[in-house]
Amino acid sequence: MHLTHGLTRAALQRPDALALICEDRRRTYRQFADRVARLAGAFRGFGLKPGDRVSILALNSDRYVEYYFATIWAGGIIAPINTRWSTPEMVECVEDCTPAILLADSDHAEQARALARQCDCIHHLIHADEGTADGFADYETLIAETEPVEDARRSDDDIACLFYTGGTTGRSKGVILTHANLAINALHTIPGYGYDETTVALHAGPLFHLAAGSRIFTNTIAMGCHVVMCRFSGANMLSLIETEKITSVVLVPTMIAMLLEMPEFKEHDLSSLSHLSYGAAPMPEALLARLMRALPHTKFAHSYGMTETSPLVSTLPHSVDDLDGPLAAKLRTAGRAVFDVDIRIADDDGRNVATGEVGEILLRGPTITPGYWQRPDLTAEALRDGWLHTGDLGYLDEDQYLTVVDRKKDMIISGGENIYSAEVENALHLHPAIAECAVIGLPDERWGERVHAVVRLENGTAIAAEDLIEHCRGLIAHYKCPREIEFSTEPLPKSGPGKILKSALREWQRT
Amino acid sequence: MHLTHGLTRAALQRPDALALICEDRRRTYRQFADRVARLAGAFRGFGLKPGDRVSILALNSDRYVEYYFATIWAGGIIAPINTRWSTPEMVECVEDCTPAILLADSDHAEQARALARQCDCIHHLIHADEGTADGFADYETLIAETEPVEDARRSDDDIACLFYTGGTTGRSKGVILTHANLAINALHTIPGYGYDETTVALHAGPLFHLAAGSRIFTNTIAMGCHVVMCRFSGANMLSLIETEKITSVVLVPTMIAMLLEMPEFKEHDLSSLSHLSYGAAPMPEALLARLMRALPHTKFAHSYGMTETSPLVSTLPHSVDDLDGPLAAKLRTAGRAVFDVDIRIADDDGRNVATGEVGEILLRGPTITPGYWQRPDLTAEALRDGWLHTGDLGYLDEDQYLTVVDRKKDMIISGGENIYSAEVENALHLHPAIAECAVIGLPDERWGERVHAVVRLENGTAIAAEDLIEHCRGLIAHYKCPREIEFSTEPLPKSGPGKILKSALREWQRT
Repeated sequence: MHLTHGLTRAALQRPDALALICEDRRRTYRQFADRVARLAGAFRGFGLKPGDRVSILALNSDRYVEYYFATIWAGGIIAPINTRWSTPEMVECVEDCTPAILLADSDHAEQARALARQCDCIHHLIHADEGTADGFADYETLIAETEPVEDARRSDDDIACLFYTGGTTGRSKGVILTHANLAINALHTIPGYGYDETTVALHAGPLFHLAAGSRIFTNTIAMGCHVVMCRFSGANMLSLIETEKITSVVLVPTMIAMLLEMPEFKEHDLSSLSHLSYGAAPMPEALLARLMRALPHTKFAHSYGMTETSPLVSTLPHSVDDLDGPLAAKLRTAGRAVFDVDIRIADDDGRNVATGEVGEILLRGPTITPGYWQRPDLTAEALRDGWLHTGDLGYLDEDQYLTVVDRKKDMIISGGENIYSAEVENALHLHPAIAECAVIGLPDERWGERVHAVVRLENGTAIAAEDLIEHCRGLIAHYKCPREIEFSTEPLPKSGPGKILKSALREWQRT
Repeated sequence: MHLTHGLTRAALQRPDALALICEDRRRTYRQFADRVARLAGAFRGFGLKPGDRVSILALNSDRYVEYYFATIWAGGIIAPINTRWSTPEMVECVEDCTPAILLADSDHAEQARALARQCDCIHHLIHADEGTADGFADYETLIAETEPVEDARRSDDDIACLFYTGGTTGRSKGVILTHANLAINALHTIPGYGYDETTVALHAGPLFHLAAGSRIFTNTIAMGCHVVMCRFSGANMLSLIETEKITSVVLVPTMIAMLLEMPEFKEHDLSSLSHLSYGAAPMPEALLARLMRALPHTKFAHSYGMTETSPLVSTLPHSVDDLDGPLAAKLRTAGRAVFDVDIRIADDDGRNVATGEVGEILLRGPTITPGYWQRPDLTAEALRDGWLHTGDLGYLDEDQYLTVVDRKKDMIISGGENIYSAEVENALHLHPAIAECAVIGLPDERWGERVHAVVRLENGTAIAAEDLIEHCRGLIAHYKCPREIEFSTEPLPKSGPGKILKSALREWQRT
């Protein structure tokens, strides 16, 4: 299966239908496909060969959707960069995926230039919006002056994307996703989330993440219209839903909580919103109940997934939506596995646990990543005996509904971003005043979880919490830095072999 | 992708839901999966190895669905036999696919025995219903006495089925369909035809054809309930729709016409029928209009496809259903291509014709057969430059809606069965009285087309039409035999090189 076929087909079957809406720009599928074929021609003109990577350092826009399709149309691999990363984190990513081409918008031109200086691989910088800058090819000029090229027709096991996710060692890893992975995911998503050619999908999450990115493919295959938000803002989202008559949106619970709290919420006509899907973090039940009351005509679908799974693993269909219905208890779950994906709950030795017992969630199926880019070690660790070891802990009830209870890996999910505690701890430890430290996630109404650090200082030293946080900001992305620091004069609680007992630290917080 | 996963998943997620209904038998998904795993164990006990064929000679029943799944669960290839064929035709099929196991029901036990005598390959006969017969293993005993085995987990490019379709030379050919072919077809069918776990699908067409067979996989993947009709009868269908609250049915226009003509039609409550799909033959517009008026709450979907395409190529969604709506003109079409299937209209040299011009329909995509079983010659002829040459003539309008106008191959479609004129002509020619003959399809209200033969007898001979038809019945399936014979004393009209001009013969009929 070819992801590009979604665009080819839409341009043939619905050429004059609106395809992309962003700010004051509106493009039809004919225009979208034509621009993609030209931009792909420019990439090939820059020497892009099948399988070469194209990186993107930009805010969301309609053009981000063009970067996606132009890259695979040209035969390349999409490798977006998280704009929230620190420069050292970006350098690591670029050195890992070695893109020859880097697209950057005005907000990131300087960073892109710095990356090109530090990373030998980058030979072509493209200024990916109206602005221009020295040393950058101009996006609109490339499109205007390049002849359209034929689709490279990469398919099936050919790699389509690398999406980088945090790593426990502080170095993020590139999750390989193939054309088949993402096309099958789209075919699963279409019926479960009601995509068809009348869909007007709002892409609110960042397109450097798969959660939003996968829906670009799904909605193009469904031949729906894409509305792209450049920066997430609740006020903007509410007015976009009303003015563009948005039918479908994906949100993380953090965004939902923010929207519901806004006084403007009730002032907007949100009746067009027929489908809302949520995931990527636990959904507090009270929040879900408020959401259902606030949007009585909307169908909700909860899902569980991760970058490594394209992402859809399980879905809770909207038929379960009734808070007083016979399946109300299932509302707390992440639903049941989609076709051809197997969920297995295993103990540490890989043996199945009993129904209802907690164990590690293992997954198998055609939407599972073949592995991590150039990391056979991590691939072998994650994919054992054909099963993806997710590091998430959960259980299946007797009806096969999945509940995710915790993460085996020491990871925090804050505002939809995965943050590995080890990475934050490594940054803290680089400060000379730190004797020992531990980073945990604490429940947070707005962000789902927030990063909380417990530190013990070396004797005779003193440092303010703000200064420690500032120290971290120089090393890692802002969203990874501790939101609060707790100072302990006592040694941190430890297990027999000297490992800090995070469960005990979490217990402290509760008492 | 594994077709068997549909069953595994349904048995896990909906074990107590009804899966199979036929006459007075009702089985849940748990029972269905258990019986399949046991029957597969019996097949393996008979020595079935991965890729071995299992043939079926039986009327429709819930057990036919079990034969399907047990075969692929065991690792084998499903190779059904058309029960309407003559014995010589069945022998040809069996000698082509060489099944070691043949399942036959009571109605076909004698024929099965004859086949086993004539074909060395068949080593095991299974009596596939309650009856027993000498030399046959007993179906229910095998299931009761065999331990369930693990799914062979055949997938993707592994062959799942051989469906035999008529051949121009009088020898039918086995269309190879893989697990991926049929799984992707199912994922396309689910949203377009509204399959989900509330679906109650009536399988009315014969399960030795893909039209009905493919929906077995689709509805299992959707975890819906299957209701199987043993023999098609309008009265039975109407009462089944009412009593079993059928939601989904696939019909050929012949069946639809028959139903609408029945006085009982208005006496039944058919309000459960939310989805009706039709295809396999041209749908007269007046019939469609009557159907829409008769079933105002039903969503209709027309589709175009063939065995070689798993079968869905294009669909006309129910959103076009309005006879007075803006897309009413599209109702005459077979809709637009599904995702990842390309339709190309080509002239005899394989060049694209202009929009709106008639040419041969060529197809490409992941649901297209890899070829014909052990017929590299036919495969090479049909699949050229990556495109399936369908032999159908049609055109695409500017919105990419496909209209099928005729068949390039000299083929008649009567009651959903493909009949090659050459095969019928060969049978006629074996009668010594025939000097020359030609077989054409004439429009028929009930059957779509009917087989019409024009013959010229040798001088000095005489034979009644009934006797010539009887002669054919000894050689080919009854449905292929001429329904009427027209005697000509003049030589049949010919083109320059001496080829009979069938267009001129058809013209005769109109005047």
